[in-house]
Amino acid sequence: MKGAFKKIATRMHQAEPETNFAFEFWDGDRVCFGDPSQPGAVTLRFKSPRTAKHIIANGFLGFGEAYMGGDLELDGDLQELLRLGICIGFDQPPPSPWQRFVFWVYRISNRNTCNHACQNVSHHYDRGNEFYSLYLDPTMTYSCAYFRSPNDSLEQAQHQKYEHIARKLLLKPGEKLLDIGCGWGGMLIHAVQNYGVSALGNTISHSQYEHARSKIKELGLEDKIEVVCEDYRNLTGKYDKIVSIGMFEHVGQKFIPVFMQKMDQLLNKGGLGLLHTIGKDKASVSDPWMWKYIFPGNYLPTPDEIAREMGMAGFSLLDVENLRLHYARTLDLWADNFERNAEKVRQMFDDVFVRMWRLYLRGASAGFKYGELRIFQVLFSKGLNSDLPMTRDHIYIQ
Amino acid sequence: MKGAFKKIATRMHQAEPETNFAFEFWDGDRVCFGDPSQPGAVTLRFKSPRTAKHIIANGFLGFGEAYMGGDLELDGDLQELLRLGICIGFDQPPPSPWQRFVFWVYRISNRNTCNHACQNVSHHYDRGNEFYSLYLDPTMTYSCAYFRSPNDSLEQAQHQKYEHIARKLLLKPGEKLLDIGCGWGGMLIHAVQNYGVSALGNTISHSQYEHARSKIKELGLEDKIEVVCEDYRNLTGKYDKIVSIGMFEHVGQKFIPVFMQKMDQLLNKGGLGLLHTIGKDKASVSDPWMWKYIFPGNYLPTPDEIAREMGMAGFSLLDVENLRLHYARTLDLWADNFERNAEKVRQMFDDVFVRMWRLYLRGASAGFKYGELRIFQVLFSKGLNSDLPMTRDHIYIQ
Repeated sequence: MKGAFKKIATRMHQAEPETNFAFEFWDGDRVCFGDPSQPGAVTLRFKSPRTAKHIIANGFLGFGEAYMGGDLELDGDLQELLRLGICIGFDQPPPSPWQRFVFWVYRISNRNTCNHACQNVSHHYDRGNEFYSLYLDPTMTYSCAYFRSPNDSLEQAQHQKYEHIARKLLLKPGEKLLDIGCGWGGMLIHAVQNYGVSALGNTISHSQYEHARSKIKELGLEDKIEVVCEDYRNLTGKYDKIVSIGMFEHVGQKFIPVFMQKMDQLLNKGGLGLLHTIGKDKASVSDPWMWKYIFPGNYLPTPDEIAREMGMAGFSLLDVENLRLHYARTLDLWADNFERNAEKVRQMFDDVFVRMWRLYLRGASAGFKYGELRIFQVLFSKGLNSDLPMTRDHIYIQ
Repeated sequence: MKGAFKKIATRMHQAEPETNFAFEFWDGDRVCFGDPSQPGAVTLRFKSPRTAKHIIANGFLGFGEAYMGGDLELDGDLQELLRLGICIGFDQPPPSPWQRFVFWVYRISNRNTCNHACQNVSHHYDRGNEFYSLYLDPTMTYSCAYFRSPNDSLEQAQHQKYEHIARKLLLKPGEKLLDIGCGWGGMLIHAVQNYGVSALGNTISHSQYEHARSKIKELGLEDKIEVVCEDYRNLTGKYDKIVSIGMFEHVGQKFIPVFMQKMDQLLNKGGLGLLHTIGKDKASVSDPWMWKYIFPGNYLPTPDEIAREMGMAGFSLLDVENLRLHYARTLDLWADNFERNAEKVRQMFDDVFVRMWRLYLRGASAGFKYGELRIFQVLFSKGLNSDLPMTRDHIYIQ
């Protein structure tokens, strides 16, 4: 067991010779590169041979479970350790026959049908609005922010994200906007308050639904915004503009064409849509730890899957923007807020939960910074619309 | 025969009830909708039953051949007629078994190998620089311009296109730029004069090569720009930035992965590339008239094909912009220049050539305005580059 980790440490050192780090084993043995007392250095302690075996057998799933359970201890920055892991492809091993089997079962078992989607979404989003308010900004926005300057606050950057999307969508007074997967209602409120549209949003998370409705009532916007607790497949009506922010990840590969056809049904001819989703440049197996503990049923699409299904649905691709480093920064700020409130989270849940959520937030940030995670904003029209501005200047005018 | 065209005319009228048009047949019979004496009206005259039969049997290929040969006569705006045809899908019939066979033969016969590519490119681009100068702008740029304002001149818009690309590529003094398929050298000259890069361009058109070299010499830029008459597959070296404008259309579907792998070989780690290419939202059979007479061996890719092959090559997609209406305007201005010089073109070639080239220019413009043609600028990095600006503001700053 120790031999395998000594090899891994050597590969990490070869990939990143400047980094100071050490692995310490249960019997006091250790492997060390550079000076682990330096600032930024990382020391990882394996508390038993069992832990080491579990990681070797299960890769990142095993690592995550060992970290959650306290069988791995870390001195130093978790993200630095994750960076070293990503550098040697520890997050991307060739999938084992077992993993292939699990994903095959998934594909044929339709896990994102309406019922399953509710369970999957509830697993993540119904942990209580109080919990989310401990690390999100006051707009309760749970998706990638848009930092116009490096020092923008999280709240400012979330407002800027809504504004960036509103400009791309060319929202105009009197238009009807649909927000598929509206979360806690941030985009709906921004669009109605700043652009005079009327808007419908849907969510299948009860906590989000309750929060969004009470916030809209508090702001006196009930006559302009409707929120429904409904699966996207059950939406009806016709809209001038559609937006979907950070929801497409939950649709699942099998339902991508269904999602596109639904948007086609809901959008007026010549109307604009914007899909804001995490993705990958190249298809790969979903991360099993993230799947099991954080986002069951998630699927991160590639731009080619998105573009192909948009083309099949009769949409015309107008603009794609990759905001990768914006999501890394958003996640870092969430993780910092989370750490400040870790004690409260521990009281709400337990120690294992704190470690699990920390690994999720720091791990996702590392995925955007060093790994395979991307975030795309994809703007499209239903059929051709020749009345749109010729350039993207309108997005950038002060 | 007449019955078939009367049905087509009825479908056109149903699709576009406001349009005034008439079909006149060889025997004086006619079908007419609205008032063909109105401005903007179109009258199409079929000179013989043979012409009509050829069009019914061969679709747009037959129409194009009849128009070229003078067997069809037109009063009014050719593009208006093409618009009516596109409205009823005349340009997009389900491919016949014969067309399928032709494309199957194409796919297995590797028509864009180095030798075939030279023949195909020569067919279009080696018609003499004097001919192209009759309708291109003074920069001799033969690709989609970028109109910041509706009244920009063609020359101004071509400079703006180069500038738009240079900003997307974040060109910096001292960098090495490669232009794959550099045409008459416009991008190379703009980049070297405005950004202080050193540059290599390649072309396999001898006319372009001669023109580019003499222009570069005239400007005293020989120490900064090299142009080679060489297939892209034979290029070597390492570059900080790569651009390819309006050349990818000639690569052919089979060679898309080869092209991407070649860019991967040529680009430094973290370097940026920009692919500017005509494409379609959804795959369809190539237009057989365009294939036979204008661009043999051409293939118009979909964004999903581009994104997939970029992902496979290890590129990270950063930005996609669809400039559809810019190409329509570029083609309209080219076509207007062409008409002004039609008599000179007739003397260089003949009447059939004039009609052929007119149909190509007006037809392509109609394809961008009403049909399936799109133009994409796709920006990507080789692997991840975290030193890039977080926003696209730098493209739009005055």
